Order: sequence, then structure tokens, then C-alpha cells
Amino acid sequence: MDEGNLKLAQEFLPEEYVRQGGVSLGGRARAVRSLLSQRQLPRQGWNEASISAFLDELATMDSNNFADRAGVGEREARVFSPLVARRHFGLGHGVGRSGELAAVQPKAAGSSLMYKLANALVLHALRLAGMRVAKKAIIVPTATGMALVLCLLALCAQDEEANREEHGSSADDGGASESRHARRYVIWPRIDQKTAFKAILTAGLTPLVVEPRKCPRGSDALVTDVDGVRAAIESVGADNVLCILSTTSCFAPRTPDKVVALAELASEYGIGHVVNNAYGVQSRRCMGLLNEAARVGRLDAFVQSTDKNFMVPVGGAVVASANKAFVDAVSLLYPGRASAAPIVDLFITLLAMGEEGWTELLASRADVFGYAQAELAQVAERTGLRLLDVRGNDISMALSLDALSSECGGDDDAVTMLGSMLFVRSVSGARVVVPSKTKTIGPVTFAHYGSHSSASSEPYVNVAAAIGMTSTDIDRFVVRFEKTLAAWRKAHASPSTSTS
Amino acid sequence: MDEGNLKLAQEFLPEEYVRQGGVSLGGRARAVRSLLSQRQLPRQGWNEASISAFLDELATMDSNNFADRAGVGEREARVFSPLVARRHFGLGHGVGRSGELAAVQPKAAGSSLMYKLANALVLHALRLAGMRVAKKAIIVPTATGMALVLCLLALCAQDEEANREEHGSSADDGGASESRHARRYVIWPRIDQKTAFKAILTAGLTPLVVEPRKCPRGSDALVTDVDGVRAAIESVGADNVLCILSTTSCFAPRTPDKVVALAELASEYGIGHVVNNAYGVQSRRCMGLLNEAARVGRLDAFVQSTDKNFMVPVGGAVVASANKAFVDAVSLLYPGRASAAPIVDLFITLLAMGEEGWTELLASRADVFGYAQAELAQVAERTGLRLLDVRGNDISMALSLDALSSECGGDDDAVTMLGSMLFVRSVSGARVVVPSKTKTIGPVTFAHYGSHSSASSEPYVNVAAAIGMTSTDIDRFVVRFEKTLAAWRKAHASPSTSTS
Amino acid sequence: MDEGNLKLAQEFLPEEYVRQGGVSLGGRARAVRSLLSQRQLPRQGWNEASISAFLDELATMDSNNFADRAGVGEREARVFSPLVARRHFGLGHGVGRSGELAAVQPKAAGSSLMYKLANALVLHALRLAGMRVAKKAIIVPTATGMALVLCLLALCAQDEEANREEHGSSADDGGASESRHARRYVIWPRIDQKTAFKAILTAGLTPLVVEPRKCPRGSDALVTDVDGVRAAIESVGADNVLCILSTTSCFAPRTPDKVVALAELASEYGIGHVVNNAYGVQSRRCMGLLNEAARVGRLDAFVQSTDKNFMVPVGGAVVASANKAFVDAVSLLYPGRASAAPIVDLFITLLAMGEEGWTELLASRADVFGYAQAELAQVAERTGLRLLDVRGNDISMALSLDALSSECGGDDDAVTMLGSMLFVRSVSGARVVVPSKTKTIGPVTFAHYGSHSSASSEPYVNVAAAIGMTSTDIDRFVVRFEKTLAAWRKAHASPSTSTS
Amino acid sequence: MDEGNLKLAQEFLPEEYVRQGGVSLGGRARAVRSLLSQRQLPRQGWNEASISAFLDELATMDSNNFADRAGVGEREARVFSPLVARRHFGLGHGVGRSGELAAVQPKAAGSSLMYKLANALVLHALRLAGMRVAKKAIIVPTATGMALVLCLLALCAQDEEANREEHGSSADDGGASESRHARRYVIWPRIDQKTAFKAILTAGLTPLVVEPRKCPRGSDALVTDVDGVRAAIESVGADNVLCILSTTSCFAPRTPDKVVALAELASEYGIGHVVNNAYGVQSRRCMGLLNEAARVGRLDAFVQSTDKNFMVPVGGAVVASANKAFVDAVSLLYPGRASAAPIVDLFITLLAMGEEGWTELLASRADVFGYAQAELAQVAERTGLRLLDVRGNDISMALSLDALSSECGGDDDAVTMLGSMLFVRSVSGARVVVPSKTKTIGPVTFAHYGSHSSASSEPYVNVAAAIGMTSTDIDRFVVRFEKTLAAWRKAHASPSTSTS
Repeated sequence: MDEGNLKLAQEFLPEEYVRQGGVSLGGRARAVRSLLSQRQLPRQGWNEASISAFLDELATMDSNNFADRAGVGEREARVFSPLVARRHFGLGHGVGRSGELAAVQPKAAGSSLMYKLANALVLHALRLAGMRVAKKAIIVPTATGMALVLCLLALCAQDEEANREEHGSSADDGGASESRHARRYVIWPRIDQKTAFKAILTAGLTPLVVEPRKCPRGSDALVTDVDGVRAAIESVGADNVLCILSTTSCFAPRTPDKVVALAELASEYGIGHVVNNAYGVQSRRCMGLLNEAARVGRLDAFVQSTDKNFMVPVGGAVVASANKAFVDAVSLLYPGRASAAPIVDLFITLLAMGEEGWTELLASRADVFGYAQAELAQVAERTGLRLLDVRGNDISMALSLDALSSECGGDDDAVTMLGSMLFVRSVSGARVVVPSKTKTIGPVTFAHYGSHSSASSEPYVNVAAAIGMTSTDIDRFVVRFEKTLAAWRKAHASPSTSTS
Repeated sequence: MDEGNLKLAQEFLPEEYVRQGGVSLGGRARAVRSLLSQRQLPRQGWNEASISAFLDELATMDSNNFADRAGVGEREARVFSPLVARRHFGLGHGVGRSGELAAVQPKAAGSSLMYKLANALVLHALRLAGMRVAKKAIIVPTATGMALVLCLLALCAQDEEANREEHGSSADDGGASESRHARRYVIWPRIDQKTAFKAILTAGLTPLVVEPRKCPRGSDALVTDVDGVRAAIESVGADNVLCILSTTSCFAPRTPDKVVALAELASEYGIGHVVNNAYGVQSRRCMGLLNEAARVGRLDAFVQSTDKNFMVPVGGAVVASANKAFVDAVSLLYPGRASAAPIVDLFITLLAMGEEGWTELLASRADVFGYAQAELAQVAERTGLRLLDVRGNDISMALSLDALSSECGGDDDAVTMLGSMLFVRSVSGARVVVPSKTKTIGPVTFAHYGSHSSASSEPYVNVAAAIGMTSTDIDRFVVRFEKTLAAWRKAHASPSTSTS
Repeated sequence: MDEGNLKLAQEFLPEEYVRQGGVSLGGRARAVRSLLSQRQLPRQGWNEASISAFLDELATMDSNNFADRAGVGEREARVFSPLVARRHFGLGHGVGRSGELAAVQPKAAGSSLMYKLANALVLHALRLAGMRVAKKAIIVPTATGMALVLCLLALCAQDEEANREEHGSSADDGGASESRHARRYVIWPRIDQKTAFKAILTAGLTPLVVEPRKCPRGSDALVTDVDGVRAAIESVGADNVLCILSTTSCFAPRTPDKVVALAELASEYGIGHVVNNAYGVQSRRCMGLLNEAARVGRLDAFVQSTDKNFMVPVGGAVVASANKAFVDAVSLLYPGRASAAPIVDLFITLLAMGEEGWTELLASRADVFGYAQAELAQVAERTGLRLLDVRGNDISMALSLDALSSECGGDDDAVTMLGSMLFVRSVSGARVVVPSKTKTIGPVTFAHYGSHSSASSEPYVNVAAAIGMTSTDIDRFVVRFEKTLAAWRKAHASPSTSTS
Repeated sequence: MDEGNLKLAQEFLPEEYVRQGGVSLGGRARAVRSLLSQRQLPRQGWNEASISAFLDELATMDSNNFADRAGVGEREARVFSPLVARRHFGLGHGVGRSGELAAVQPKAAGSSLMYKLANALVLHALRLAGMRVAKKAIIVPTATGMALVLCLLALCAQDEEANREEHGSSADDGGASESRHARRYVIWPRIDQKTAFKAILTAGLTPLVVEPRKCPRGSDALVTDVDGVRAAIESVGADNVLCILSTTSCFAPRTPDKVVALAELASEYGIGHVVNNAYGVQSRRCMGLLNEAARVGRLDAFVQSTDKNFMVPVGGAVVASANKAFVDAVSLLYPGRASAAPIVDLFITLLAMGEEGWTELLASRADVFGYAQAELAQVAERTGLRLLDVRGNDISMALSLDALSSECGGDDDAVTMLGSMLFVRSVSGARVVVPSKTKTIGPVTFAHYGSHSSASSEPYVNVAAAIGMTSTDIDRFVVRFEKTLAAWRKAHASPSTSTS
């Protein structure tokens, strides 16, 4: 209903009603204007109708939705199922071109615009969450693991490029390049979450694992062994090391890596540094570490999951950096097109949240974390367990199950069983860890897998307070955990040792 | 409405009506039963309501949709926007685990089941299209380019593994592995479509480009220079060659690579062989080549685009092989989770097509190709152009623009302009190629980029008959092409040379 | 994306792509412009996205969707369930005001505009179907029965008004009006479809039923007894007769009423005439009768079902007339607001059909009717039944079941059973009529109910060729009918009498 | 996913995951079981996915969704537009049969079941709101006005029936019935809301208007003149009176009619009594009046709007009664089918609310009413206006604008203008009443229309606290009202008289 059409509408309706209707319609256009000119989250979230209407406009700008189009290419975004077409709002061309992930597709102006806006919005969201150093961010339509692979491969490509320049060699010189030097090692402070470790192997690189150490100040925390990292670098020679791959968000009693110290090491040795900040956007602490690390040392990129931080379905990651050129390198590395779905999800979500909704969610998560800690402390008291002392991790916490181990006479399988007992009672995400198993992934064998350290021995259960969680989740957990514990004790505890 | 509920419904309605309603409801369950037990496309496509209902049931099996769930993990598939949740039918956990792309997620039984069914359906669809050798197929939630990267990295990992076994080395031996041998070269018969070439670079490998040659039998076709491939292998030593990356579906006058001969070479030299079969599923010819190649030589995997063959939005690819182990290797290589969106799209689409719809689409595409050729021949006659003689490519065709080049006195820019003139007239996908530009991608410089051969000189325009295209597209193209040509001639042709 | 926003988009995308996107967006606005200025069906139907976008714009013009609204009335179209809001595209205020059905609602400019457009479109659709005399049409959000009640009550109100003017009486004169004359009779040529007859009773009026007679020209057709109608009028005195309520579309062997002759009678006697043209829009014959009747006699209104003619869910009717004032009277009679749902359904459908789709549907229905007749003639031959000779009904046909009656020794229940046997085999709409039952509705008792005539005795089964039906329906019917007949004969026919 | 299919799923997934998925699926079936057996609102509302899935199951039970159906009737619920089909969840047959609104449609078992359930749910909702006397309720798919018409016509039909029985007359006796007695008068305590008054006229009946009187206890309230009602009955003779049509929910300073006293009168005189309880479900006070009235006197039916009480789009009304037979009579009166849309809306909404949601909404509305009163009292104080003293109306309140009238020298148009000034500022529903206009509707002329009384003279503005309203609405209203008032005063008040 542009001006001309509103004028025509006055032949059906009194002018004043049309005018007020026009004001309302104009509100939509003003909101879009603000989005295009500010490139930021709207202060208040948009409603669904506004979001759908905007996506529909964007889709109309894509060639597959042109009326009377003659499509004679091999890729014309024809969609067979109307159900599929609808769920993508008519967008079909994905994002990216053969040249670059962030490149504009001539056939898909609307999709291209959407992607650029989404990247701008997510950068704003990261800054609102406290990531002040982020200068550029790109949403990659792969989950965190593959996004880490892309970052590692981008570092490899830079290394290759540097070699080429140094040696004046080209791909054509065949055998000559054989002798070329290539950085193959990735220093990886151990954290028992498979994805990041596998990313190193997927990229065809060689991991060097550095075990964490117990916090010297007496708490239960497992912290980065910075000296160990330095030793690892020197063991293979800094010239052979591609980068350090560190981690912020993690399960207690592991705490975020000392990324500031690691950034200083990276800088000192002239090696890369990528941070797996999977669900760290929601943590003020992780954000603070990244800001400081980027200030004092080297930090090529930090990678965050879209589903874990922004409450969208699994499928995307955000690669961000204080170094715009590195983000561009990742974008340029990506071969060909990619699904727009994870980007559309995030675009919708950020528009729907708005600045107010997003900051409120972050604040509310911090509150729930506090609530969860207080509740777990009481659970511990009531049940004779112990809440591990892990300052420094403001997302995950852990209840020691040492007492249970004693009660059942050290039967690890029995303790492990608690986990599936909880799952059957619709508790999801409570992770029971019994540090006794050994696991081999690719070329590396980890002792006491799951506990992040071959020195760990105490079994425990993890609980996290992640974004979107409510106190109801905690309340339900507490009730069911205590019931499950009682059931477990009935089944497994030898009478003499039971505490309650 | 299970039996018990239908019984209760009889207190509201006459028994006979409830019974007939129950029969209709039972039809849905029978269709699901058939799907689960046959693992094949239904003969007739399902309607939207049945597909939605089944997806809804699958989503209900995922833990994020359990009633009264207590979610205390860091990843609970909470979705902020109801609009986003709906478009994913309530599925939020994506596919894959840290261990493997095809692994079952305990938190997401429904998503996991959906993925397994989708893989079974796509294998059936490939076989119906004539790909008899396919033994296993997996839908990867990345487009063709990244899927090729995964295949290349999987070959690297196999090579690495083989080295490890040979040398007894492990990741821990630091400097020792430095001296290890690694296959770095990928032999690539040139085709000027950037994605596959970039995939080699993204994987950190070194491409060796082999130019095609003119068909010796006098036609315009550009065919694989098999001797050139052999020479390339020998130039670096077969031990240094990871694989041949060949191509089937391509733009005329390029024809599908001689994958049979290449498979024999791969077998002879003990090197890998991956086929970029991007949109070749719709081509009987491409399918035939793959069947024969797998029979007589080595063919590790063939990769096909989901959007180009199955009419879904960009975002997925199918990695298939006669060698189940290789498909498993790709699945195992993938680090972490991934978007389920491309899989859901294909799942919906295959259910909606059914066997009848799918085979009909394939047949109709072949008809449209014939129609397009006949029409273009007439266009050529009417306009004084020449239809290139390219037997062997049953998807793409090309009209020589040599006449135009003469008319405008060899002004390449003028000829190139024809492309944007067509695009402005809503002709999309008609690709004007003027073989005069040089392009550098990574370490390689290509002469006459766009024409697949540094020996090409004749400008032309491509037209493809891809799946889902109708004769209306051709009719519109013909009309607009002739109008555009007239406009072009008015603007660019020198009076003396114009033909019509 | 107005001009200003497209300008801003150029900071993200090359100008040419934005421009072409803008052209596509402009196409939507042009289509709306054409709709508002032409007030006719678009030549080609709109696609779903365009329809949804337009409804969304209309909804945005309704006050319940104004941003930052302060709603302090008792009726603010707040909708609790987002699912409900979405299915109504955000429209909540319904149509109509306390004053008039077609009045503009100040709170709902968009809904009001939609209603006016829908009425214009349906008038155009009626004309395209051949109803040349229609000058005004209004979609009432009640099905045919209640729409007939409204027409009858509007005639009553006119009568009342005339009385008031004549006698100078007003409502305040209490007892005086008691003696006033009021027309209470409705002459109704019998047709055994309950709704219209009940409408007379619902309106508080008294029906005078006139039986049809056998066609004098020897066919099986039941035709209007015009002399009987005249006699009925005279029996109670024309001054006491409110109107004739005649019927066009009907089940064979009943044929459309002789509305031309009835219109002449109505004119002669100065009484009203309303036509129940329930599903007659799809019949050229019914349309022709109405055109002629309006030309030569009196025809206050004709009422048609939206679901039976326009393929929407049950819920609306169209009141049309050559007399604009009468349509306005119906609109003015309606007390208060009403559901917009049936109007939105028709609005969407007419936009989706377009002129081409609508005329094609009408033509295709006529074809299917011819096909059905030919097929039923063959069924009759094969099965020893007789196709009734009913020229004059171009929608419904009938196969005599007299043979079956003989075969089972005149067991009416057995013949009746054939109907439910068909229904169980998923044949719906095949109506088995055995003229033997008596039925009382309100004050009237009908002999041989279902057969339209107390003189009927031959059982038969009806089949109709209604809009949207395909030859597949007929083919399925033929197969199942013959199977069912065979099953029936096995169960019911005495061996000696069976024909096949 | 019935048992058999879950079993098959175990060939794809570990049994334990399938089992837990099965438990989740079973939850849906259990919820349906509870609904069918309890016929009450679920305690907690269902989520959208569960509601959609259930509607989908119901639709599958309708014949238009049977697979392989042969439809050969004239009404087969074929739906042209998939967009329309989807928004009705595949339901197409509407509700009702020619026989009765609540009758089961053989072709539409699912729709029929849905309607019966919806009626049961709404009865439960009425009781939860305090309407203890309701024994039966039916949702009619027309808004309040037409629902009142139906009730009046049902009373007429009962009267007719009684006459017929008394006189032994039948429809066939022509002239004889002429002399029959018919009750034509409806006693209507004046309330200036057009719909109900028009309903009397639409039904062809004669209204007798009884003006309210000022509350004798000195407040501003306008209350029912019970003596006036008695006088009106006697003026025309009780035998000529069909019924009293009273009103509960209304705009202040009008208060709910004294329905208890009126019910006693109705009982005493043997006349009908219908209550227009348009938005009274949300008022404890209205509910209490109805309970008491039904206990001590005659109350045939009370009619309530679905949109005003249950937050659905306009389109339905609930006819309820302590007298089941009367509700059945209304259902039996309805001729033919009707739109299911308003019923589906209410069905969805009641399932989504659940008992908890519904009672919470009612409680919250009462709170907002209190809040609004307190706020308006402060507004009055700040602006020199007066909050009318209207005890007895717990939904609507009124601010006297007498001060403004004085300020502008009694310029009624100026005072009226305040209303449109508010509307332009997105305040909707604030009703400015200036008791000076005369309005004629049908045969009756009302003095001071809008103010409910020809004796009213004080201008005022109404504000209502209706269900779904939030304190934000009030807050916005207060701010804008005061701004608007200031603007009004600037424009209209003569300097000497302005108060603030």
C-alpha cells in the first residue's frame, strides 16, 4: 500500500481511516529504515508479522520470485514442495558465492542483503553482551566444530601464502614445494568436549594436548597450565606450530582457559590463537577475558555457537575478531554456497529480541545462575553431597558424587547409572562424570576421559545455567534429583555407608 | 486418536462415523509403517498434512519437546522465537554428535530417526535415477563445495592413518612426524566453475590443473585429456597424489569428464578418485558414467548438490559411494553437530514427490532438454547464430556468439553486455562467455577463464535444461533472447556486418 | 522497501541488483493498484506470497495492530492465541457494524477495505459465470440457509415499512399495530432439500408447498407446476403472500424451477421473489434463467453458496440482485458484526484463481459433467440400470434403481442400503433415494420425502458434477459403484431376477 | 507413531530412546483422552503443536480428507486455495446440517466431534467464570446480534407451536391462521448500543422501549425502571408480549439491568426473558445476577460474545441457559450449515488457555479494573474532571466532561471532538458521549442517543477494563488523555474558564 494505493483506497473508505492505516503501514517502513541505517538491533523487538513481512520483501528481491522469469540456468532455486518454500519464506538461493561466503549473489539480492544485515546485527549483539573488541563478525552456516575447522584452515592458508611469498614458489613447481615448511601443530589445553579436538584432526593438523592443573589456591578448579603450553610449543619448535586453540566456556570444575596469558604467548612466539568461545557470549567473565586477551596479545578469532548463545536451532556459528582481515579470510576460504537457514533463524531471532529482549535475557541468565548455585548448595547440604568450589566458571557448576562412590563401595558403574536415571525422569543435560575411563580419539588417548584431566578422580554431576533457562528448570531439577538420589541409594547404597 | 480415544469418541458420534474416521487416521500410520519398513520413497507422494503430522511426531520424540522437562545442560534446544520454532517443526537439536554426523543423539531421538530415514530415501532416489552402484549415501548439511572439502579431508585422514600404521608413529612423537610423507596433490581436469577448485585450496591441498582438449571427432566438445592426467600424476609422482577430482555435470561445450578412464587411472596408480557430480543426478549420461567407472576402476565418492537435483533451497549435498566405508569415513570426520534444515527440506521433498513424482520429474526434464535443443536450433537459424555441436552433454547447450563478435568488430565488452541485457529482461541463468579474460585463483592463473580451456576463443551463451524447468521457461527465453539480440544489434552492430 | 529503503539498501548491494529487486517489489504494488482501480479479478491469479502480503498490509491498517495502541474499549480485537491470530492474518474485528453489514468500521479500516474489495470481486466472478443481470452482490458470513432467512426478513421489513407508511402508525402505538396487515405466506415449489424450507420457518413465516409435476414431454424430469403456484397464491390471497421462494440448482430428476414464469407471476401479483441459487453459479443454464427472469419479471434476490460454487469451506453466501436497493436492505438488516472468515476465504480464493483460473474451472466442470453422463450411460448399460432422462439439469444426474428393487423383491431397506455400502467404500455424495418415506418438518408433512414429489415411486441414485470435480472422481466412482452393485446383488438379489 | 511403528523405529535407534520418545508421544494421546472423557478445559493449556496435531487428526476424520475418495456430490468440501485449506486445518464442511446446528455430519465426523467438544469446553469455561446455573451452552457461528435474533425467533417458534397445538391448526389451512394470535412485542430496557435493538427489528418484532432512571441512592448510575417495564407489559397486554430483552454488560453510567426483578416479572406474566450478556462473562457481578435470576424467575437464555469474553476474532456467540430445551430449540431453528471458523477459534483458545490460564485472565481483568479506577480518579483530580460515581458496573467507568463543556461555552461539537483527537493518538475504545443528539432506528426515535437516557445531559468519556487489557494500556491511556486534554484546552477553552 504505497501512497498511490492509499489514495485509491480513499474511494472505498473515509480519508481519515485510510490516513491512520497509512500511518500504521508507515511504521513498518520506518522500522526497516532504522534497521538499514543503524545496522543495530532495534531497541524493542519486532513482532512476527513485521518480521515475516520484511522477509517476504527480501524474498521478492530474489530472482526466483520474479514474476514471468525465464530461468535457464542449472541453479534457479526452484523449490518443489510449497511446504519447504514457505518455511524458507521463499528464499532459495542460500548465501555465498563460489568466490566468498559474504559475497553478493546477483540472482539473490534479497538473500544477500539479509545476510549482511544479520552479520551487522550479530556484531551488535556481541558488543551488547560485552565483547567490546569485536570489530567484525560473520555468521557461518555450520555449527561450532566446522567453524573451528574453517578458522584452522584459514590459518593454514595464511601460512601457505606466507611460504609462497617467502620462497617465490607456485603450485606449478611440483616437487619443489615438497620440501616446503608447513606449520602442522595445534596446541590444545585439554577439555573433554570432543568437537573442538576433532576439528583439529578434521583440518588434517596434529594436536598437542596440554593437561590442566588443579588451581593452586586450593579450590576444586582445573586451570590452564600456561607453562605446559609454553613447553609444548618449544617441544616441537614454534615454527612448526600453527596456533593455540583455547577454550572459554566449559564444564566445571574446568574453568575458562587463561586466554590472556595464552594470547601473550601466541604473540611472543608468533603463532596463531583461536578461541573456542562456544557458549561464552552469555558469560560476562568469558567476554572480559577475550577483551583483555585481544588487548595484550594475539587473538585471531573467537568462535561462538548460535544455538547455545542465541536460542536458535543447531546450525550456525559466529566467527568474530578484533582483526577484520581474519574474518574476511574465513569468508574467502569458504568454497561455494551455503544454507541460509541458520542465518535466517538468527536474523529473525535478533529482530524479535531487540536490544531490550537480548540484554534482559543475559541479565536473567546471570540471575538464574545465582539461584541455581544457592539451590544446589542446599541440595548438597540435604543430601550429604558437596558442591565443588569452582570460582571462575559462571555457567557450569558441579556436585561431587564422592559420597555415592563410598556408599556403593566404589562401583563406578553404579555411580554412572545415576545419569540415565535422571534422563528417564526427564532431566536433560545433567552430566554425570566418573573419571575412570580411557578414550582414544584419532591419534591421542585420554585418561579419565570426561573429567578434563588424567589426574581427576572424584565423580561429580554437572549442572549449567544457560541462556533461556528459568528458575522452574532448577526447581524441577532439584525435586527430581533428590528423588532420583533416594531411588539410587535404595538400589545401590550399602546400608552401613548411607548418609541420610 | 488411538483406539482408546476413538472408543471415547463414540460417546459423541455414531460408531460408524468414528470407525470410518479411524480408518482414515489409520492410513497415516500405515504410510509411516511402510516408510519405516521399506526405507524407500512412497510410491505416491504424501500430502502436506501427512508430512507435517509425521514431522510433528518426530519432534515430539525430541527431548526439547518433552512436557515438564528439566533442562540443565548448556545445549537444550530452547528456541526463542516461535516463528523459528515453527519453521523447524519443533526440531532444534540439529543432526550429528561430536562423534559422528550420522550418530544418534540421545536428546533427539526424533531428529536422529528423521536423518536416518532421509539418508535411506535419498539413496533410493539416486537408484531410481539410475545410479545403480550407490551402496550408501549421506546427506551432509553443507553445499557441494564444502562436501567436496570433506571428501578430500577424509582421503587425507585415510592417508594419515596409513602413514601412522606404516611408521608406527603417533601424535606424541613431535618432530618425528615432520619427516612423514603426505599426499598433497589433487589432479583436476579443468572446468571453470570455481567451487570445486576452491575446495582443493580450502582443504589445504595443491591442485594440478589438466586442460581439456577439443574433441578429436570434429565436434565443438571439450573433452578430458586422459593422457594429460596421466602425465600430471607422473610429474609429481603417484605417491604424492591424493586423488583425481573429476566432474560430470558441466556447461557446454565442456562435456562430462571421462570418469571411466580416470577411474582406471586411479586404480592403476593407487590414488583416490572423487567425482563432483553436482547436478548430474538428473542426467542419465552422468549416471551411466558413474556406474561404469565404479565397475572398472576406483571411485571413492561422488558428490551431488541437493538443490540442483532435488529442488530444495541451497544448503545440502549428498555424498554417495559404492564403498560404504568411505561414506562412513566422511560421516566420522565431521566434527560436532550440524543444521538439520537441509535434511528436513530433502526429507519433506522426497516424501512429497514419491517415486512417481520423482521419476516423472526426471523424465520431464529430459523432454524439456530435447525441446530446448530444437528451439535453440531454430533460434540459431532465425538469428544467424550457430548452435554448438556438443554431443555428450545432455543438460547444457551453447549458442555461439561468433557472429555477434564479427558484427561489433570484435568488441568483447559489447558481446559480454548481452548477458546483463538478458538479466534485466528477467532471463536468469543464461551465461554469456567471452574467452578473453585471465583469472587467478589462489596459486593458479587461468587463461580464457570461463571457457574451460585456454585454447578457446569463440564466445557463446549457455542454456541449461535443469530439473523443474518447463517448456514455458524455454518459450519465454526464446522470445526475450531474440528481442534482446535485436536490441543488442541496434546498439552494437556495425551496419555492414549485421546478418538479419 | 519503499524508495527510501531501496536507496539505503544500495549501501549494502550494487545499485543494479537493488534496482531489479525494486522492480520485483513494485510488481506487488502494481497488482494492488490494479485491484483497487479495476475492482475485478486479476487476469491471472496471484501467488500465495502476494496474497498473504496484501492481507498483512490490510491487517496493519486495523487498529488492533497499531503499534503502541492504548485500547480501552470493551472490544479491541485482542486475540489470546497466536495460532488463532495467525490464521486470521491479524484481522480480528470481523466485518459490519451495528448499523450495517457493509459499513466501514473506524477501528478496522483494513478489514473494511477487504470486505468491499471482496464484494466487488465476487460480483465480477458472478458476471464472468454468466450472471449478466447482477448489479450488486454482498457476501454474507452465513451459509445459504441463514442468507435466505435474511432475504425473507428483509422482505418482511419492507412490507412492515410499507404498512407503516400507509397507516402512519409507529411502534409506539401499541395495540393499534395489532390489527395491521402482514404478509405471512411464502410460496415454495417443493424441493426435498431441507435448508431452504427451514429458512421459511426460521423467519417465522408460513410455507405453502406446491408439488412439481412430471415433465409433459415424456422425460423423467420433475418440473415446476406454474399453475399450481398461481393457485396457491390465489388460495390465500396475493395480499397475504410475502414472496415466492424458488430454486434453480437441484438434484435430478428435479429440474431448475421455471423462474422466468415465476418472476412473471411475482410481477403480476406484486409479490416478492427470492431464488435459492445454491450451487447454480456453475451452471450456464441456471445463469440463463436468472438473466431472463430479471428481464421479464420480478426477482428480488438470488442467493448462492460460497462453498458450493467457489470451493471455500462452508460459511458464506452471496446475495446478489439486479436491484441494488434490495442488497442494501439485506445489509442494513443485519444486526451487528459478523465473522470475516468466510469473506477472507473467498477473497483469497478469488485472488488466487484470477479470471483465467475461474473461467477454466467453470469450463472444466461442464466437461466433467459431459464425461460423467457418458460414463453413467455405459454403467447403466453394463449393469442393467437405466439413466434417467432429465434434460434441463446440467449438474445432477440420476441412475434408476428400479431394477434393484425388482431384484430384491421390492425391499426398500435393501435398496437404501446401497447408499451406506457406497459410503463405506469412500464414495461420498452419491445419494440413494427410495421414495417411500414420509417426513414432517415443522407444520408440513411430505410424502415420499427425498424424491421431491409425492407422486414419485422409482428409486434412484444421484451423482453430481460439481465445480472442482475431476474425471478421476468419476472413474473412481464407476469402478466402486460397479463393485458395490455386485456386492449388493450377491447379498440381496434373488437369483431368478438378477440381470447380470 | 503407534506401537507398531515405535517397534520399527527400534531398528534405527536404541530401544531406550525410542521408548522415551514413545512416552512423549503418549502424552499427547493421554491429553486427548482426558479431554474426551472429562469434557472440560485441561488444567494447563496445551501448546500450539498439540492443538494443531489434534485438529489435524480431527480433519483426517472428515471425508474430504479421505485418501482415494470419490466425491460425486454437490458439496464435497473441495478447497481451491491451499492457503485457505491450511488456515482451516483441512476442515471444510463447517458445522451443522440442514436439520440442526449441533447435528453430526456423516461426511464430517471430525468437525462434528470438534463442535461437540467446543460446546462442552465453553460450558465449563462459563461455569469457571461463575455462571453456575448454565446447564447447556452452544456456540453459534454468528456474532451477538444475530444470536439474539435466533433466540427471539426461537421464542416465536415456541409461541407458534403453542398456538398450533391450542388451535389444532396447520400450515395448510390457509386463511384460518390469519386470525391467529401472535406475540409481537419485545420489552427492551433502553441501552444505547444498536445491535440488540436492531436484533428485535431484524426478527420482525416490535420493540417497546423502557427508559432507565437515575439511581435513587444519589449516585450517577442509570438503573432499570422495573415499574416502567411492568407498565409497558400491561400497556400492550402480556399476551402480546414475546419477551423481555434485558442487558447486563454495558457502558457506565448505565448499570446492568435488574435481571433478577425482570426475571420475576417474566415469570409472573408468563413471558420470555432473554439476556444480552454480551461481555458479561468477565464480570463477577453479571454472573451473580444471572445465577440469581435463573433461580427466582424466568430466564430463557443468555447470550455472550465470543470475541469480547474469550479473546477470539469477531464471529461467534454463546447461547447458554439453565434450560437445556431452549438451547436445543435454538440449535434446531438454525437452517443449514454454518462456518466452523468461530468455533475452531474458540476451541483452540480454550485448549490454549486451560483452566489456569482462563481463571488467571479473569482475575487479572478484575485487578486491571481496580487499577484503572484508581488511575482515573487521579486523572480527574489532576485535570479538574469528575469520575462518575457508578457502583454496580465493574467493567466500564466514565469521566464527566462537564468541565470541558463549561470551558468551551457549551460547544457540543468541541467536546465531541475530543474523541477523534484521542483516536488519532492511537487511543481506541475511549467513547466520548455528548447527550444532545437524536437518532431514529427503524420505528423508534431516541433522544440524547448514546447516553442511554433522554434525561441525560452531562457529557462524559467511557473507559472499560476488558479481558486481556493490561496496566500498560491504562498507563498509555492516562498519558495520552492528559496530553490530548491539554491540546483540546489550548484549542477550545476560553481562557477565563480553564481550570488548570
